[in-house]
Amino acid sequence: MNTLPTVPGPIQFHFDFISPYAYLASRLIEDIAVRHGRVVDWHPMLLGISVVKVMGIKPLMETPLKGEYLRRDVPRRARKLGVPLGRSMDGPIPTPLPAARAFCWLKQQYPHLQSATAHAIYHAWWARGVSLSTPEELAARVGFPPEVDVEALLVALKGPEPARLLRDSVQASLDAGVFGAPTIIVDGEPFWGSDRLDDVEAWLSTGGW
Amino acid sequence: MNTLPTVPGPIQFHFDFISPYAYLASRLIEDIAVRHGRVVDWHPMLLGISVVKVMGIKPLMETPLKGEYLRRDVPRRARKLGVPLGRSMDGPIPTPLPAARAFCWLKQQYPHLQSATAHAIYHAWWARGVSLSTPEELAARVGFPPEVDVEALLVALKGPEPARLLRDSVQASLDAGVFGAPTIIVDGEPFWGSDRLDDVEAWLSTGGW
Repeated sequence: MNTLPTVPGPIQFHFDFISPYAYLASRLIEDIAVRHGRVVDWHPMLLGISVVKVMGIKPLMETPLKGEYLRRDVPRRARKLGVPLGRSMDGPIPTPLPAARAFCWLKQQYPHLQSATAHAIYHAWWARGVSLSTPEELAARVGFPPEVDVEALLVALKGPEPARLLRDSVQASLDAGVFGAPTIIVDGEPFWGSDRLDDVEAWLSTGGW
Repeated sequence: MNTLPTVPGPIQFHFDFISPYAYLASRLIEDIAVRHGRVVDWHPMLLGISVVKVMGIKPLMETPLKGEYLRRDVPRRARKLGVPLGRSMDGPIPTPLPAARAFCWLKQQYPHLQSATAHAIYHAWWARGVSLSTPEELAARVGFPPEVDVEALLVALKGPEPARLLRDSVQASLDAGVFGAPTIIVDGEPFWGSDRLDDVEAWLSTGGW
């Protein structure tokens, strides 16, 4: 009897473009995947749904004490990790909803470009700190991979499909028990937080403990 | 002109006995301190005050999704770190208030024993998982250092002083901007979370980045 070799599944990376910690982790997760012969599957979620509506918690930056800590910790972590950070955390951070919707549509159209697309949007949002509050800003300011038909994206964003795909993605994250960003799921095992990448790497190496 | 050598200040360890993550960090912090020629100053706080009252957040274990994650993550982290964990996280975890009050009083009486006292209480609570809901249980079940006059502690716990000391400690933590446990402050720089001990160690080594 022949046994087919097992192909290891992708690393499930649940993220929200609004989350600076998910951004930091996004800059490290590909190298981890490569070291362990995996690919990354990117799952947009919305902290505004999972944290605020399902968990009943205020947005982090609006939480007393914690908001102040994050304004110190995020730039400190970015410096330590050598990740560029061009967005101020002093004011309220709007949700880049068109970016999340665009990502979902582009992931469906160009599944092989999902990593490049995620990095392009994250770079515009967190490294350069530009506004992505409309489809037009998104099209003009994100350095999408050359294969992407940006005109078709703009047409799609006028219809309901990208928003529907994002709602499905958010619900799928909730169904997987994801409540925070980033959450990295390795072979069914969830790890929450950009500071748990060591655990992710150890789990990939050992298969668990 | 003579310059006195600078004595490096203690590592400020803010903790709540109820927090399993603070327990895990408590088992690692002394080694870190020793490696960098520091001592640990232990500051009890109450998550029920900082998180629930000041931040307006539900207790972690009662938060949808997050509670389930913690029930998986805490034992997983304990196994990885080789730290014994004898308390189930399946039900609600009561606040060991007499333990926190006793610690504050004992820290005042025996400042040189604060580390040993903290470890003794944590061991009874999280490693052995015994109940510490009354002063009598505390006296009978915690392996206090031999120098500790347990009878005097029991007398003190009948008076208002230990509760007053704890209130002051909680307020001092809030005044220092501490909102979660553990929070480790190194030369004025706060680090929140048992998964940030690498940052603590790097800060001690480099003086910042």
